[in-house]
Amino acid sequence: MTQQKLNETTSGGTKAHEMAKKQREISVAEFFSKNRHLLGFDNPRKALLTTIKEAVDNSLDACEEAGILPEISVEAIQMAESRFRIIIEDNGPGIVKKEVPKIFAKLLYGSKFHRLKMSRGQQGIGISASVMYGQMTTGKPARITTKIGPKYPAYYCELNINTTTNKPEIKTEKEVEWNKDQGTRVEIDLEAIYQKGSQSIDAYLKQTAIVNPHATIIYTSPKAEQIIFPRATDKLPKEPKEIKPHPKGVELGLLIKMMQDTDARTMQSFLINDFTRVGSGSAKEILQKAGVIPNAKPGQMSRDQAERILKAIDETKLMNPPTDCVTPIGADQFEKGLKKEIKAEFYAVTTRPPSVYRGNPFVVEAGIAYGGDQEGDKQIRVLRYANRVPLQYQQSACVTTQSIIQTNFRSYGLSQSRGALPVGPCTIALHIGSVWVPFTSESKEAIAHYPEISKEIKLALQECGRKLASYVLKKKRLHSELKKRSHIEKYIPHIGTALQDLLGLSPGQKDLVESDLKVILEERRGKLKSIEAENSEYDKELASIGTDAEAELHDDADEGGDDRE
Amino acid sequence: MTQQKLNETTSGGTKAHEMAKKQREISVAEFFSKNRHLLGFDNPRKALLTTIKEAVDNSLDACEEAGILPEISVEAIQMAESRFRIIIEDNGPGIVKKEVPKIFAKLLYGSKFHRLKMSRGQQGIGISASVMYGQMTTGKPARITTKIGPKYPAYYCELNINTTTNKPEIKTEKEVEWNKDQGTRVEIDLEAIYQKGSQSIDAYLKQTAIVNPHATIIYTSPKAEQIIFPRATDKLPKEPKEIKPHPKGVELGLLIKMMQDTDARTMQSFLINDFTRVGSGSAKEILQKAGVIPNAKPGQMSRDQAERILKAIDETKLMNPPTDCVTPIGADQFEKGLKKEIKAEFYAVTTRPPSVYRGNPFVVEAGIAYGGDQEGDKQIRVLRYANRVPLQYQQSACVTTQSIIQTNFRSYGLSQSRGALPVGPCTIALHIGSVWVPFTSESKEAIAHYPEISKEIKLALQECGRKLASYVLKKKRLHSELKKRSHIEKYIPHIGTALQDLLGLSPGQKDLVESDLKVILEERRGKLKSIEAENSEYDKELASIGTDAEAELHDDADEGGDDRE
Repeated sequence: MTQQKLNETTSGGTKAHEMAKKQREISVAEFFSKNRHLLGFDNPRKALLTTIKEAVDNSLDACEEAGILPEISVEAIQMAESRFRIIIEDNGPGIVKKEVPKIFAKLLYGSKFHRLKMSRGQQGIGISASVMYGQMTTGKPARITTKIGPKYPAYYCELNINTTTNKPEIKTEKEVEWNKDQGTRVEIDLEAIYQKGSQSIDAYLKQTAIVNPHATIIYTSPKAEQIIFPRATDKLPKEPKEIKPHPKGVELGLLIKMMQDTDARTMQSFLINDFTRVGSGSAKEILQKAGVIPNAKPGQMSRDQAERILKAIDETKLMNPPTDCVTPIGADQFEKGLKKEIKAEFYAVTTRPPSVYRGNPFVVEAGIAYGGDQEGDKQIRVLRYANRVPLQYQQSACVTTQSIIQTNFRSYGLSQSRGALPVGPCTIALHIGSVWVPFTSESKEAIAHYPEISKEIKLALQECGRKLASYVLKKKRLHSELKKRSHIEKYIPHIGTALQDLLGLSPGQKDLVESDLKVILEERRGKLKSIEAENSEYDKELASIGTDAEAELHDDADEGGDDRE
Repeated sequence: MTQQKLNETTSGGTKAHEMAKKQREISVAEFFSKNRHLLGFDNPRKALLTTIKEAVDNSLDACEEAGILPEISVEAIQMAESRFRIIIEDNGPGIVKKEVPKIFAKLLYGSKFHRLKMSRGQQGIGISASVMYGQMTTGKPARITTKIGPKYPAYYCELNINTTTNKPEIKTEKEVEWNKDQGTRVEIDLEAIYQKGSQSIDAYLKQTAIVNPHATIIYTSPKAEQIIFPRATDKLPKEPKEIKPHPKGVELGLLIKMMQDTDARTMQSFLINDFTRVGSGSAKEILQKAGVIPNAKPGQMSRDQAERILKAIDETKLMNPPTDCVTPIGADQFEKGLKKEIKAEFYAVTTRPPSVYRGNPFVVEAGIAYGGDQEGDKQIRVLRYANRVPLQYQQSACVTTQSIIQTNFRSYGLSQSRGALPVGPCTIALHIGSVWVPFTSESKEAIAHYPEISKEIKLALQECGRKLASYVLKKKRLHSELKKRSHIEKYIPHIGTALQDLLGLSPGQKDLVESDLKVILEERRGKLKSIEAENSEYDKELASIGTDAEAELHDDADEGGDDRE
């Protein structure tokens, strides 16, 4: 059989021709409908969450970009055992009629992909993918209503996506009455399953509220309970600025492409206008090092010249990109959010200064909530955020988790076995804001491992960790102090009675002696306050805390929790 | 400031118009060049592996489809500190001229996406992505040489991919001399870093050799060492058959699309011709249950009718899809491969019968190699394969790993703490073959978690586990038996001397007594052979093995290892 097969190969040409017939182009919609798990639609439960998430993220982005305090209503209605209707309505700027079909029923279409600016959406895929999933599982088109201002009529349409062409199909469209100044309403039917838990809609909205204190969210669950997450502040997050690419982050291929596409007539002006942080001085320097004349035409640069320019950029000192394109939540806002969400006894939050990976500015924020109601014998809870969006899946694959694992929390008073998350009554929240968050997959569940990002996360964790450490040690010393004292106090009455017998004291004298002894004890062992004061000096001791100590620490923590009740 | 921002919203229309201007279409090439980590190009080290992997996978697929025993040469040449040239040449059927540009320089183009058949490539993205990455990082076009038969000239071309349009750009093309009957040669320059280790080219090729015993691979490393993985068999794997979709795996949206696209004139013929496992009998049954007349026109079905048909399909008994579209490696071939790669003392391999998820047939194979040179105090090593391709990244996110963790290996004689991989001198290899492997991301690093797949993996692991258990118990009993005996033997001489003194025996008599005692001992405690025989009965005991026992087991294992040296 093999022999016969081998013979075929002598007429391999025909085989190649035969195989050629099977070659075909694949539409991006076909691709993603077959690879729906890439977009977060692996199963009906996740599909429900993803669809709501995409719609809410878009609403928040639109409102903030328009400078509107978001007011978003989220409704999930169960139509059949595994079929839901989700309705998301916002008070955003609305969408102009001609854009509606493409925004909701064409994959890879949007305003956020080509700009360098921090926003929740990035790719122009999310909501169209939800529309496609709904259509694939229920055959029902998506219903969109949008109004761009009081003076304008509301536009309503029903949309399908043609998966063979990745083009929108408008089923119905009309003007409708909508007693609302402006906003957008999205209605999608889809196959889904509703469950509570850490990966539920409820958890997503709760975590969203933590990092979006300026938004009001009204949620009506499939059980028809209404949960309102009211706005905690009227202050909109500072609108991030859009920036041009930074030369240090540019690759040869991209540079060549930019030189072909640019409107600039000379290399000098190209470098200054098409990049951030390049002034005429540094432009001259770069071109000189590269041996390229300043008024050479960008379109005529050869590959070798381009490579020399890249090398010259590498060797030229340039400022880091401006960082006003990323806006952190801010330590105090972040801490407010945590306190709202987690009953703990100690909180520490850090916002790192912005940094840069592959030319993309990003900022890391970390928060730790310790003790309180939290169980002490479990691995810590991790809350992950990217551009203010909670990440609820693929925790183990995320750079945040890996960075926590690689940070030694033993020295901060938590127990931790090698290669694992620390154990203790503790929650760690991490937020990464960037003009471009590198997710490991299109479903935006985990952040890819870039060394620069991992480094910043670890620094943020260490800052919080040190604060945690001193608190934990204080508790520990306080705790053992109280133990010692209660031990001694136990004996005082016995000493009293002994002295009474020996010296034949009267009951009154006995009581006096005992209270005197208490006073002496107080003085000898010092007041609690003074102990608390001392503590800061002892933080270095912490590094020496061993496993037994840790066991003890957890007792502390639990008691600490009780104290507050 | 908030107030002022809010005022803007009263003229929200203008804001919507303003935002509309920013909307833009995104080319799939732009998308993937920005999201390169989705395709396995997160960093230069991985980029090198991914590029070689994509080229080798294509060569293996092409050879097998053409019935040719693959002979593939892989060369990686270091051009500069972080720049490599990779050259992959095969003896495959070659590619017809007009297809070459699209196959190598257009994303989402290929022959494998639209068919249901097990193959390494699936999406028509891989090799074009490598070409694009090389171009983005070095500016150099890819060089392709291909020949489709002795009677044909060889075709050479240099290709770039236009990332704005996702169309190939031919830089040079010509006919060239090639003293070779047929085959294809791919040459790509790229930014990369070469490292040894479990995620290196070397490891990839070695693991590839395990599951492709019919292929000869000649590898020339950047250090110019040549490593040859010779063919272990002349038997090509059975060529998998292409199948039509199975009705039970079809969703409403897809059914509607199929009814619109079909050439069939009646619903009856549509069901029979466009699906697998639907005969005229079951077709009638389905349509009857759905209340649709057999000669209704597919194109005219309403959404509700489609939904009724789907419901009817659900309620109709249909054979599982034919499974000759997936070809397992086969237990014996798989075991050969393992023995070649891993020095162990015990091997167990299982091939499960094919099963189905979402209408896609798949087959799971598991292999365990225990003891030998393997370290006993570490977590076990996991080798993961999808359609004969090794998976080297994102182990923790893979359904294989999760399924191992969820299997209780304590009862099979390995130690294992909850939620972790077992610990022991052991390697577990898992192969999933399917017409459609659901990877968690386009970089094909981890397999998504489908319950049906997870279930099959666990069953395969249990089959191997039971075999492992009986072996491990045997070792354990053998070991303690030998211990006991050596203890007793230690005392025999003393007893001998004692008796000599008591009874005044002659040296000869003493020796006689001692040897008699030995014989009695032998008989009393039985021969080793008989012990080995007994063992099978004692397997149930295993479940009771506790942690201490496990510690002991590892000693055994290590000794076992020594025995063989």
